[in-house]
Amino acid sequence: MSSTAGQVIRCKAAVAWEAAKPLVIEEVEVAPPQAMEVRLKILFTSLCHTDVYFWEAKGQTPLFPRIFGHEAGGIVESVGEGVTDLKPGDHVLPVFTGECKECRHCKSEESNMCDLLRINTDRGVMLNDGKSRFSIKGQPIYHFVGTSTFSEYTVVHVGCVAKINPAAPLDKVCVLSCGISTGLGATLNVAKPKKGSSVAIFGLGAVGLAAAEGARIAGASRIIGVDLNPNRFNEAKRFGVTEFVNPKDCNKPVQEVIAEMTNGGVDRSVECTGSVNAMISAFECVHDGWGVAVLVGVPNKDDSFKTHPMNLLNERTLKGTFFGNYKPRSDLPSVVEKYMNKELELEKFITHEVPFSEINKAFEYMLSGAGLRCIIRMDA
Amino acid sequence: MSSTAGQVIRCKAAVAWEAAKPLVIEEVEVAPPQAMEVRLKILFTSLCHTDVYFWEAKGQTPLFPRIFGHEAGGIVESVGEGVTDLKPGDHVLPVFTGECKECRHCKSEESNMCDLLRINTDRGVMLNDGKSRFSIKGQPIYHFVGTSTFSEYTVVHVGCVAKINPAAPLDKVCVLSCGISTGLGATLNVAKPKKGSSVAIFGLGAVGLAAAEGARIAGASRIIGVDLNPNRFNEAKRFGVTEFVNPKDCNKPVQEVIAEMTNGGVDRSVECTGSVNAMISAFECVHDGWGVAVLVGVPNKDDSFKTHPMNLLNERTLKGTFFGNYKPRSDLPSVVEKYMNKELELEKFITHEVPFSEINKAFEYMLSGAGLRCIIRMDA
Repeated sequence: MSSTAGQVIRCKAAVAWEAAKPLVIEEVEVAPPQAMEVRLKILFTSLCHTDVYFWEAKGQTPLFPRIFGHEAGGIVESVGEGVTDLKPGDHVLPVFTGECKECRHCKSEESNMCDLLRINTDRGVMLNDGKSRFSIKGQPIYHFVGTSTFSEYTVVHVGCVAKINPAAPLDKVCVLSCGISTGLGATLNVAKPKKGSSVAIFGLGAVGLAAAEGARIAGASRIIGVDLNPNRFNEAKRFGVTEFVNPKDCNKPVQEVIAEMTNGGVDRSVECTGSVNAMISAFECVHDGWGVAVLVGVPNKDDSFKTHPMNLLNERTLKGTFFGNYKPRSDLPSVVEKYMNKELELEKFITHEVPFSEINKAFEYMLSGAGLRCIIRMDA
Repeated sequence: MSSTAGQVIRCKAAVAWEAAKPLVIEEVEVAPPQAMEVRLKILFTSLCHTDVYFWEAKGQTPLFPRIFGHEAGGIVESVGEGVTDLKPGDHVLPVFTGECKECRHCKSEESNMCDLLRINTDRGVMLNDGKSRFSIKGQPIYHFVGTSTFSEYTVVHVGCVAKINPAAPLDKVCVLSCGISTGLGATLNVAKPKKGSSVAIFGLGAVGLAAAEGARIAGASRIIGVDLNPNRFNEAKRFGVTEFVNPKDCNKPVQEVIAEMTNGGVDRSVECTGSVNAMISAFECVHDGWGVAVLVGVPNKDDSFKTHPMNLLNERTLKGTFFGNYKPRSDLPSVVEKYMNKELELEKFITHEVPFSEINKAFEYMLSGAGLRCIIRMDA
């Protein structure tokens, strides 16, 4: 047991006091973990669009003050009652969605959408008692998606913690907590391109490039990147993208352009933008007979996906995925191993690094579209 | 070689001289098969909605005079040049769509939509020379979907002929040429329900009941039939349907009713009506995380399939199928074996039988909605 087990820990956290205002590094109190909870020492965290989206809180019911952060790597500091498969010192990745191992989804081989611990962006408290484990002078500070990794210590439900190979460098594999696994799994677990096949990737941000990385690992021979920003192509080449299509440069729908490039359509497509028009294009650009389109990007509330049903009847498949269909506890350790085996390259996703004290710089990089992932070093 | 090989055969055929008018039994001349063609003696044929649809020719460019018919069983009479895998005397099922074994679709494990021989309802002639093999006193009579089985003899491309077990009774297995295989394969090859799972079937005509039969064979524990006609349920019970929902009796969308009946949705659904609203319901009634909806019914030209993309992102799958994803030559023989092994029951699909001379009665049965399949005996 660590000397801090059972005690309140005072540490630094980056607190969002209100929407879209710079985070403030504060001293917070982190309560000990309750039943089925673990307290983690976060060593590295990175910034994902989802953090920024809920920090901006546009059109949302705001939930502040709050500690954001959900891509991270850390070490178990102490565990609460009933936790048997984690112990202090274990190296872990906290995850924004969980795996209780008891519900119908967890028992299904096909789903990772745990009934108990599925992502809930509206909840700012822990499940066990409906309260926060963070406070500043008695004032509760809300959690974010059950992880709140922009803190030196955080409390997470055991179902949201993947135990990984302790030899894995946490400053690299921390990016597997969310976006990279989402894109990678969309290709490897859902689209499943065969060796030598063609894959179109819509959206060449971190998630889309991770989807391209999946296609590269699967041995796709053509990886067609689609993005409105022509600057993305050079970067995308490093992720295996072989061709680039900018819908702005096309005088016909991009699905028709891709069908012409590929003698009838690509074998697989992965949509990573969340734009409903891109979703329709991604579906309609796959080949009849065997094409599979996978939707990853999160749409707007009022969007409607529309297509002629004959596009389906001609033996196309349309699927959506959540977190790349990975079950966080069961499957993430093997993704870490893919990195350890040098099958998966993570370094190229990491374009920036800042000390925790400069966390707001990570927000600036993301808002300006610079780079892919910014690692935030908690000890610096 | 039969004594008729290489000769024109004079025989009876039921000719549709114009749209929606009773067929007329005529003496026709059937030319010998050309390269890659075979001439078949048809013993049994049955009537399918598709025959009726193109015979009515509503909103279509009419193609008359024509010999309809595409569900049938027969025996090879003679073969044309280049045909090596069929010989006179072989028992066969002609099929409205083909398998050339050379194109990308035929070489793909996933597709049965042969580039060369995919169904073409507009073509009334043979591929080899762009001409018909049928004539009456020199006037050509058009073919229908490459089969034209409402004739004692017909000429078919070798790629549209499945050679089957000669012990199989052709008066039963002839129904496997189209509708029954379409529904059965939609469930067994595409939806693939697991033992003990729940399946919803939209539309309880012959194709839908064949889909239910597939669910029964797969060991589904709940098979929910959906139809606007309450009289269908009694018949459907014989095909394994355990529950019935009539959307007319529901005060909310049928997908919500089914979700309530099944704790969140069925594991699989199969849509066999062609109504776009039923397609949407069939998709939205499958469970998140693992649900798969399969579209079989052919939509109208201007239909639009619409759904909120979150229904997809919550890990539902939407697929369409054509001829139950069976490759006609490679796969139909094994479907016949399922019947021979008593795994698949075909007798219950056959509700009527008429001699060839009374073929118009088969049209009357179908137009009045009576029964499922009417076998037409060519020798009577």
